[in-house]
Amino acid sequence: MENGGMKIETPTIKGILGLLMASLDDEKRTRVISLGMGDPTSFSCFTTASVAEDAVVDTLVSNKFNGYSPTVGLPQTRSAICEYLSINLPYKLSPDDVYVTAGCTQAIEVAISILASPNANILVPRPGFPIYELCAAFRNVEIRHFDLLPENGWEVDLDAVDALADQNTVAIVIINPGNPCGNVYSYQHLKKIAETAKKHKIVVIADEVYGHLAFGANPFVPMGVFGSMVPVLTLGSLSKRWIVPGWRLGWFVTTDPNAMFKNAKTVELLKKYFDICGGPATFIQAAVPRILKETGEAFFTRTLSTLKHTSDLCVKKINEIPCLTCPTKPQGSMAMMAKLNISLLKDIKDDIDFCFKLAKEESVILLPGLTVGLKNWVRITFAAEPSSLEEALEMVKSFCYRHSYEQNGTVDP
Amino acid sequence: MENGGMKIETPTIKGILGLLMASLDDEKRTRVISLGMGDPTSFSCFTTASVAEDAVVDTLVSNKFNGYSPTVGLPQTRSAICEYLSINLPYKLSPDDVYVTAGCTQAIEVAISILASPNANILVPRPGFPIYELCAAFRNVEIRHFDLLPENGWEVDLDAVDALADQNTVAIVIINPGNPCGNVYSYQHLKKIAETAKKHKIVVIADEVYGHLAFGANPFVPMGVFGSMVPVLTLGSLSKRWIVPGWRLGWFVTTDPNAMFKNAKTVELLKKYFDICGGPATFIQAAVPRILKETGEAFFTRTLSTLKHTSDLCVKKINEIPCLTCPTKPQGSMAMMAKLNISLLKDIKDDIDFCFKLAKEESVILLPGLTVGLKNWVRITFAAEPSSLEEALEMVKSFCYRHSYEQNGTVDP
Repeated sequence: MENGGMKIETPTIKGILGLLMASLDDEKRTRVISLGMGDPTSFSCFTTASVAEDAVVDTLVSNKFNGYSPTVGLPQTRSAICEYLSINLPYKLSPDDVYVTAGCTQAIEVAISILASPNANILVPRPGFPIYELCAAFRNVEIRHFDLLPENGWEVDLDAVDALADQNTVAIVIINPGNPCGNVYSYQHLKKIAETAKKHKIVVIADEVYGHLAFGANPFVPMGVFGSMVPVLTLGSLSKRWIVPGWRLGWFVTTDPNAMFKNAKTVELLKKYFDICGGPATFIQAAVPRILKETGEAFFTRTLSTLKHTSDLCVKKINEIPCLTCPTKPQGSMAMMAKLNISLLKDIKDDIDFCFKLAKEESVILLPGLTVGLKNWVRITFAAEPSSLEEALEMVKSFCYRHSYEQNGTVDP
Repeated sequence: MENGGMKIETPTIKGILGLLMASLDDEKRTRVISLGMGDPTSFSCFTTASVAEDAVVDTLVSNKFNGYSPTVGLPQTRSAICEYLSINLPYKLSPDDVYVTAGCTQAIEVAISILASPNANILVPRPGFPIYELCAAFRNVEIRHFDLLPENGWEVDLDAVDALADQNTVAIVIINPGNPCGNVYSYQHLKKIAETAKKHKIVVIADEVYGHLAFGANPFVPMGVFGSMVPVLTLGSLSKRWIVPGWRLGWFVTTDPNAMFKNAKTVELLKKYFDICGGPATFIQAAVPRILKETGEAFFTRTLSTLKHTSDLCVKKINEIPCLTCPTKPQGSMAMMAKLNISLLKDIKDDIDFCFKLAKEESVILLPGLTVGLKNWVRITFAAEPSSLEEALEMVKSFCYRHSYEQNGTVDP
């Protein structure tokens, strides 16, 4: 029996976290604190807005939305997302620009699949989000990595982009606010990225799944602001801002007012592609107009203030741990990267070893940096209950001290 | 700007129905009766079980299922579907055989993508369900059509299968209960299909989205009954039996107790493939165990009795229309095929012409047979309110008389 002979080497975040969890015995698994995944719903300080839940209950019990939606999404849902995104743009999108997806993951899959062609390559950030690599592997698209520069607030190494791009390059992926780095790019930096993409005649895939989750100096600027200069495929979802990743409600948007990318043929292809996608539940789609319109500012403010608090706490605790450095303070999203100084640790080989031993000894889960492209770093999700976060990082600290060479004649934590 | 250069010719059911609807002026659109799509939710005699709705409301308001599920599905959902399917099998599936999908569409997409390899071909029925062709086009898989035989209850032409299969054939698609034909295959015929697949060393993709919707002489027999003989990929969903196509809750199941298809490598590949799929909402998944366990027999009986009634009505009305013939009475699913005798019509060119003129003149929508692979046939969905169905077919009748050559000296309808 054939099964395609496909061989996919890309590790996945969920795969590694699953192995870390499986390495624990049952007793430890019940009291584990995981800072490994970008899903804050297990912490009570992160709950969705009540209007969001009410809206979905109402559309469900109305019995009007149990049937199929158009595969590109309900018209009212497309319109509502169009309005929501247009607020922050210097022009107005059309509802036809919006395709409703089963979470941002499906939006990524659509973007990669639609751009795939023989020999095509896509530029993706390192560190980044491994679903891009995985999608590209399944769709036979070559991935080329450009670095994000930790010392420059994880900005894109634009010289590297220039060096990597060639006539087969079709797109560059920009994740802002950033996962895994917690960066929020300035207007000026985004403009430079847009100029670079324009120069190479490539599309920008703007992964804005963490859109509006910015709590530092830089406000969130959607890449679509530069849509008149370069075609942008905007990917987003309710998942992070509304804290409902399990609702699987996202969007794929052609933010391309000058129709540089979209044309009758592309639109036809996109529509047909959506015919083979599962898409999100109709009644959840039907709730989106009310969710986008009626969620109060107070809900967003509360989330941002919690994230500001937990990210500050995270940085403070990391600064107490000699073998961990955080090169730059996170300004957005729900995760940050910390650098591991392996040379200070006497019996830890690398980030993978670090995370497995940490899980086993302390029941704390961090994500090995290798999973997101950076060996000997760790990704820490700070979207957690402050008390759990503090407790977990206290355990990381004692773990590090226990595994450190003696420093200044003392091993006292 | 590149867009992959992909060219997809396959027409889609939704595409054609959209064009038919668009051809109507606004006034006519409001009173249109569509027998074009397999979505009965717009007719009040087809409503889901109250326990299904209650179960989803409960998991939603519990606030426990707003987070990500594993991409292959929640463990309790996999277990529940495993139990549900095992009831009708001579062996027990494992929960690990079950992958939860965003409707049956995503299950089809996964099956085709996982089986894709250079030069691979898949055998699909004609008439059939065009999503298979569309998926195959996007995944560069060759499609080869075998005929279903109208005069034999739409059984598979097994000689044609023998003639089509070669060393690059990886699978055969069997849709039972059948869309678009309303067939329900006997145990004996399914066994012969399994033997044929075994002989050619190919996998059976058993599309059982209409599973259990059998109201004629043949009971529904899942293809998995022959899973020990030949590996079966069972595709299904809540959509049809629970009348909730918009909930997007389906499954992809390796019904393969002897592990002829599944092995460590395939399972790893499947798991990774699910990492790039959007998947269904977590809270809907969480409701599945209760839905499968607590939906009463009375609900199923009511649906079957309604479908029996509407399919009989449909056949009776078709028999009153000289230019339409139904070669065999439907025994299951929600649709049937009727043959168009174009030679009796004076100003109708073909099935496409028939359906567009019918829509324009009578505000009744039927699906041109060409969309499902049979020129000069029409697909009629009988999952409709009996009164609407009767009214619509009465209009088809007067349309046909109006466009017929005079017969036996009379044009009286």
